[in-house]
Amino acid sequence: MMKAFKAMSREELLSLRDSLQAEYEKTKAFGLSLNMSRGKPAPDQLELSMPMLQMAGTPDCVTADDGTDCRNYGKVDGIAEAKRLMAGMIGVKPEQCIVGGNASLNLMYDQLMRAEMFGLLGSTPWKDLPEVKFLCPVPGYDRHFRILEKLGIRMINVPMGEDGPDMDMVEKLAAEDAAVKGIICVPKFSNPTGAVYSDETVRRMANLHPAAPDFRIFWDNAYVVHYLYPENQPQILNILEECEKAGNPDMVYEFASTSKVTFPGAGISVFASSAANVEEFKTRMGVQTIGYDKLNMLRHARFLKDEKTLAAHMMKHAALIRPKFEAVDEIFTRELGGLGIGEWTRPLGGYFISFTAPTGCAKKIVALCKEAGVTLTGAGAAFPYGEDPDDSNIRIAPTYPSLPELKQAAELFTLVVKLVSAEKALA
Amino acid sequence: MMKAFKAMSREELLSLRDSLQAEYEKTKAFGLSLNMSRGKPAPDQLELSMPMLQMAGTPDCVTADDGTDCRNYGKVDGIAEAKRLMAGMIGVKPEQCIVGGNASLNLMYDQLMRAEMFGLLGSTPWKDLPEVKFLCPVPGYDRHFRILEKLGIRMINVPMGEDGPDMDMVEKLAAEDAAVKGIICVPKFSNPTGAVYSDETVRRMANLHPAAPDFRIFWDNAYVVHYLYPENQPQILNILEECEKAGNPDMVYEFASTSKVTFPGAGISVFASSAANVEEFKTRMGVQTIGYDKLNMLRHARFLKDEKTLAAHMMKHAALIRPKFEAVDEIFTRELGGLGIGEWTRPLGGYFISFTAPTGCAKKIVALCKEAGVTLTGAGAAFPYGEDPDDSNIRIAPTYPSLPELKQAAELFTLVVKLVSAEKALA
Repeated sequence: MMKAFKAMSREELLSLRDSLQAEYEKTKAFGLSLNMSRGKPAPDQLELSMPMLQMAGTPDCVTADDGTDCRNYGKVDGIAEAKRLMAGMIGVKPEQCIVGGNASLNLMYDQLMRAEMFGLLGSTPWKDLPEVKFLCPVPGYDRHFRILEKLGIRMINVPMGEDGPDMDMVEKLAAEDAAVKGIICVPKFSNPTGAVYSDETVRRMANLHPAAPDFRIFWDNAYVVHYLYPENQPQILNILEECEKAGNPDMVYEFASTSKVTFPGAGISVFASSAANVEEFKTRMGVQTIGYDKLNMLRHARFLKDEKTLAAHMMKHAALIRPKFEAVDEIFTRELGGLGIGEWTRPLGGYFISFTAPTGCAKKIVALCKEAGVTLTGAGAAFPYGEDPDDSNIRIAPTYPSLPELKQAAELFTLVVKLVSAEKALA
Repeated sequence: MMKAFKAMSREELLSLRDSLQAEYEKTKAFGLSLNMSRGKPAPDQLELSMPMLQMAGTPDCVTADDGTDCRNYGKVDGIAEAKRLMAGMIGVKPEQCIVGGNASLNLMYDQLMRAEMFGLLGSTPWKDLPEVKFLCPVPGYDRHFRILEKLGIRMINVPMGEDGPDMDMVEKLAAEDAAVKGIICVPKFSNPTGAVYSDETVRRMANLHPAAPDFRIFWDNAYVVHYLYPENQPQILNILEECEKAGNPDMVYEFASTSKVTFPGAGISVFASSAANVEEFKTRMGVQTIGYDKLNMLRHARFLKDEKTLAAHMMKHAALIRPKFEAVDEIFTRELGGLGIGEWTRPLGGYFISFTAPTGCAKKIVALCKEAGVTLTGAGAAFPYGEDPDDSNIRIAPTYPSLPELKQAAELFTLVVKLVSAEKALA
């Protein structure tokens, strides 16, 4: 095994750098074309839900139990079957749910646009305020940050730990500044670190005393049932319940979808919240749309049936992607273990591995990987405004490539990490 | 045949009123429960598209011709097949199209929200202006008006004629007032009058010289292929082309959907415009969503195939609903002809018959119909703020009830029109 970089002499580093450089040039000549940039299910995962599509033309997938013809207009907030399914998935009550289209991101965007234009439960529309700020646990989900940025909402970085964001900081910023209108986060198998919020984090979140009465927690429970192991499935507290207990029933919006349960392009999504928030959401969405695709809702309900069937379905996904997560960890451990030039997460669920390179190296690593044919998520993408203050975070999305491709990509990645780290040590 | 009401003596009217009242009470006792309130296809129309659902699980409906796996992420603006289909339907070029989800209304709402928050092609966001106004041909589509109302956009009524809105008024208001930011209209088989815009109307629309550089025509071509007769299919000019010719390429947004081609709850929609507008729309929608349901797009493209197949499919709809339109006209003619107490449209397509009752009678007629078990669209619904200045317009939606039900409803309607008109004449 190689020595830690900091234990090496300059001569050792120089010679290492040269051999790494040579190896890199050799690999580049292969002309790889691999993509680990997005949390995208692989084709074999999509096959798991084909029976759902094959059911589409049957009467059972056309008429809901209450007689609703799902082909026609009506039921703007979704059919009962879909509410039950999604409520079961995230552990809330069906009446707390509104079922949406194929992107929960769209529901979040819509709700932020409505906050801007109309305000929330009678508050001043955010567009009429001098400034609106959001707390953003980092690293986090780039698409969240992009929406906030486009709306001109100022994002404040809050560091993530293993149990969730720095809650001292969240409590303080929310309590002190009425311009802070919310926090947006992925509480379970967080994108990209894989962190699972502890009970204490959830309780402290629910017990915030924000200065802004229309402060909202955007609780993007994107990976709520997306476990990698049958035997180790961490649970988080029900944020709706905790907010209710804390006397803050309207403070949270929960979101989830079946994008990585059935089909990323053709799933269903859910918004869950208090009675007042659900009522407001429903009234406003009734202006925007005639409702989302109920045929797709009913198919999902018939196919995923109940929590047990859903859990079994998710274990089929796990069986396909677990080897990919493990392969990356094996290669990283073998190639980088003990070198002191990188740390990475070993998540129990979700879609990402978060890699921390030496400070100032992430952009360079991503660029060299790209040059050699391996596309990673852009360095900095997991931070507001695309700016990683340490230039050290890299998000690895191992699910889409095949296992052999993934191994090639991971090998190249570790080679590049070593090369860039050696260069840094020599600089 | 009955005399015209105005030719009747007071005694004749009194005796007529009494007998109508008695007949009304008798009908009320039947306890009807019929709905002619929404432009909703009947179940037999929905059956026409069941083969599309039955194809859903076949490989042909999963993978697009360019290899795109429609189950997964990607192609935010829609797959090529769907662009071709929708472009063919509205007579524009595929590259002028973005394909959306199951509601074109949602696309219009989204675009108005973006105009408010971000402006259009670099213009001042509408939220930052002291006032925004829209021209609204009346009677028109209630859901259009509801969006504008919720956005606080002031609506200005423009009277509809048989060839479209009063273009003198449109030209004048657009040219004189920079707060007038647009017009929203249904150019073909207009909701609810069934009017078809003449070539002159379309050309004058395309040649507007609005004071506002970000003035937009919202061209809701909702009934573009929704003919009632095989032999009489009026065409309108291509507004995109006309705007281009007029040097106003960015002035128009066209919308359409398959809501009344396949399924109202599960169709696909389209936005069509100039290159600059399409680019802006695509960039902004890329923040909002990961894209709409591509599986549904591909199914639609495979099922509706081309313009010829689509046209044949629409004639199957026509065969089912034409008898309904004709039955209403027959009953209205038999019961109201020559009485001078109502006029109605005989559209060649679309989903509505527009009825003009004596001034001040529409609310009363709708209320008495409701009391006897026949639900109509609320009186005034076809006007901004729900206010019909004459209280005379009633929208009849004949498609959803079965033919026998529809006949009962139309009979009751004519009875009520006579009763309310007699009361008015006596007042």
